[in-house]
Amino acid sequence: MQNVRVGIIGIGNMGTEHSTMLLNHQVKGAQLTAVCDVREDRRNWALEHLGNDVSVYQTPDELIASDRVDGVIIATPHYQHSDIAINAFEKGLHVLCEKPAGVYTKQVRQMNEAASDAGKVFSIMYNQRTNPVFQKVRDLVLTGELGEIRRTVWIIDWYRSQSYYDSGSWRATWAGEGGGVLINQCPHQLDLWQWVTGMMPTRVRSFCNFGKYRNVEVEDDVTAYVEYENGATGLFVTSTGMAPETNRFEIYGDRGKLVVEDNRITFWRNRVPESQFNQEWKGGFGLPENWKCEIPVHGVESGHGGIITNWIETILFGRPLISPGDEGIKGLSISNAMHLSTWTDSWVDLPIDEELYYEKLKDRIAHSSYDENQAEDKTLDVKGTY
Amino acid sequence: MQNVRVGIIGIGNMGTEHSTMLLNHQVKGAQLTAVCDVREDRRNWALEHLGNDVSVYQTPDELIASDRVDGVIIATPHYQHSDIAINAFEKGLHVLCEKPAGVYTKQVRQMNEAASDAGKVFSIMYNQRTNPVFQKVRDLVLTGELGEIRRTVWIIDWYRSQSYYDSGSWRATWAGEGGGVLINQCPHQLDLWQWVTGMMPTRVRSFCNFGKYRNVEVEDDVTAYVEYENGATGLFVTSTGMAPETNRFEIYGDRGKLVVEDNRITFWRNRVPESQFNQEWKGGFGLPENWKCEIPVHGVESGHGGIITNWIETILFGRPLISPGDEGIKGLSISNAMHLSTWTDSWVDLPIDEELYYEKLKDRIAHSSYDENQAEDKTLDVKGTY
Repeated sequence: MQNVRVGIIGIGNMGTEHSTMLLNHQVKGAQLTAVCDVREDRRNWALEHLGNDVSVYQTPDELIASDRVDGVIIATPHYQHSDIAINAFEKGLHVLCEKPAGVYTKQVRQMNEAASDAGKVFSIMYNQRTNPVFQKVRDLVLTGELGEIRRTVWIIDWYRSQSYYDSGSWRATWAGEGGGVLINQCPHQLDLWQWVTGMMPTRVRSFCNFGKYRNVEVEDDVTAYVEYENGATGLFVTSTGMAPETNRFEIYGDRGKLVVEDNRITFWRNRVPESQFNQEWKGGFGLPENWKCEIPVHGVESGHGGIITNWIETILFGRPLISPGDEGIKGLSISNAMHLSTWTDSWVDLPIDEELYYEKLKDRIAHSSYDENQAEDKTLDVKGTY
Repeated sequence: MQNVRVGIIGIGNMGTEHSTMLLNHQVKGAQLTAVCDVREDRRNWALEHLGNDVSVYQTPDELIASDRVDGVIIATPHYQHSDIAINAFEKGLHVLCEKPAGVYTKQVRQMNEAASDAGKVFSIMYNQRTNPVFQKVRDLVLTGELGEIRRTVWIIDWYRSQSYYDSGSWRATWAGEGGGVLINQCPHQLDLWQWVTGMMPTRVRSFCNFGKYRNVEVEDDVTAYVEYENGATGLFVTSTGMAPETNRFEIYGDRGKLVVEDNRITFWRNRVPESQFNQEWKGGFGLPENWKCEIPVHGVESGHGGIITNWIETILFGRPLISPGDEGIKGLSISNAMHLSTWTDSWVDLPIDEELYYEKLKDRIAHSSYDENQAEDKTLDVKGTY
C-alpha cells in the first residue's frame, strides 16, 4: 500500500477540520477519498468544497461498505463512536477515533476487542500527547527526576457560555453527549493525567455538580479526589463556569515539585530527596535545600495532524502508536468513576463496575431533554479548541 | 488602670518569646509581672532571665490566684487551654490564648461562655490576621471586587522531619496535642480561610492520612473538600511530608480570580463579571476579557506583638478585637469536621456534632502512645514559625 485511503465519518466541527487537512496533503501517505454525514447541508458543503475525487455518503455504513477506504476517522457524536468503529474493524478497516473513545468503558472495551480480532490499527485522537510540554513532564517523571509521586493536582477550567450550549441541542445532555465537562472538554487532561504520571487511580471520591452554572443537565463543575496504589493522592478540578480559565497542573514527588502552567514547566528541585533528608536530619525544624529550575521545552505540538500522521505511519510502516486504542479506556474509566461516585455518593474503586455505570447512565438517558429527531445543530468554528 | 499586669502561663516555645517581648517593653500598656511553668528547668530559666519584678510560679492556679496579674497569656499544651482560661475568667482576669483555642469545639464554647459571664476580654493568638496580605485579600472580597465567591483552593504544606516530631513525646499524639497538621500547623490558615472569605463551609468531606509520611499517630496529610451555603466549593490541602513547602491560596469569584503566593496578591480581573458576560454573549465560544492585576500591599505584619497590643488596647480603651475569642471556634470547627469526616468516612455537616466529635477523640486519646508522666521535652527555637 503506498497511500492509505481515508474516509471521514461525520463532517461537523472536527471532521471538517480533518477533511481540509487531508485535502491539503498535510498528512503524507494519506489520501482523502470519502466522507459521510447524515445532515444534508454538510453533504452539500462536501460536494462543493472537497472536489470530485472525494465520494460523499449519507451513512457511516455506506462509507464503510464502499470499498473506497482503507481506514476511517470517526468524528461523530460520542455515542456513535463504538458501533461505527466495530463495524469498520469487522469490514477490515483501520480506525482513528475522536476523543472520547466512547461514553462508557464497556464500549471502548468492545472496540478494542474488535480491533484485536481484525488485526487493524486503532488509535485515539489524544493529540495533546504530541505537546512537547507534556512529553517533557512525562520524561521527568519516568526517568525518576521527580522521584516517587506523592500528590497530583490539576485545575483545568473550560469557559463555556450558555450561548455555546445553546448552539446544539445534543450538547451537554445525557442522551446527546453522555456527560458534560468531563466527557466533552476534559478527555485530554484525563488522559494526560495518567499518561505523564504513569499512574492510574485505584479509587475515586468525586463531587460533580450538574447544571450549576449553566442551564444544562450534565456536570459543569467537578472536584474529584483520587488515591493511587503507592499511597499518593490526587485532585482534579474542572468547571465550565469559571472565568478566567485556569490550567495548572502540579505534581509533587520525593525530589521536588513540578508545576505546569502557561505552557511552562517549573521544577522545584530538592537538592537531596525528601526521604533521604528526613532520615539524615536531626535538627528539629529544617527542610531540604530547594532549587527553582526552569525546564526547557523544545519542539512544537503536532496536534491533530501529528496523530493522523502517526496512525498512517503505523498502518504503512508499523510504527508504534502515540495513542493506542487500548489506552482510550483509561481516561474514560476515571471520568466514568467521577460520575459514578457522585451518583452513589460514595467511593468508586477502579477498574469500575462497567455494568453498574451503564445502568445508571441509561436511567439518565431515559430522562434526557435531548430528542435526536428534533435536533438542529450549528457547526461552530473550533479552531483553537482541542 | 494605666498598665495591664500580664502573667504568662507556660514558658515553653511560644511563652518564652512572649515573655521576652513584654520584658523589653515592646507592648505599650503591658507589664510582665508573673510567669509559671510546671517544669523546674523553665522556672530556673525565668528566675535567671526575667528579673526580680517578675514572680515565678509552678502552676497556673497559683499564678491566677496571685493577685499579681490583670490578664494572662496562655501558652501551654493545647488541651489545657480551656480549663486555664475558664479558671482565669472566673477569677476576673482577661485572657489571650495561644492557637488553637482548644482541641475540640466544646472547649471553646465553654471558654466563651465563661468570658461572657465574667465580662472580660478574650482574644486568640491569630496573629496572621495582622498580615497586610490577608487583610488586603479580605478587603477585596468584602468590598465586592472579586464578586460572589465560587471556589476556594488552599494548598499549604508545613515540612516537618521525623526529628521535629521526636523533639517532644507529646508532639503529634492524640493525648498530647489532639491532632496533627490540622491542629498544630494549620490553625492560622483555617482561621484565615473563613475570615478573608467571610464564608464558613456548610459541609465537609475530608481525607486525612494518619502517620503516612512520619512515624506519628495523628494526621500528617490531608485533602478536604467543602461546600458553602451559596453553592461554592472549596479545597484545603496540607501535609508535613512535602518538600518544598507550598503555600498557595486561590479564590475564584464572579469577577475573576485571586491568587496569593509568595506574599504577593495577583488578581485576574474580568472586565465584566462572568455572570453578566454569560447573559449577554451570543457567540458560542468566547470568554470575558481578563486583566492581570498586581495588587499592592502596604504595611507590615505586627504578628504576636500586634495581637498582644490589640488585646491590651481592648482592655484599656475598649478597642475592637482583631481576633475575638468567639471566632476561635470557627477554624477549629472546620478542623474537627475534617477529622470526623475521615473517621466516619462520610459527610460532616457544620456546625458539627460536638459530643460525637469529643467521644471519638476520647477513643483515640485512650489508645494514644503519649504518657504525660514520662514526658521529656526540649524547648525548640520557634523564631520564624507561627
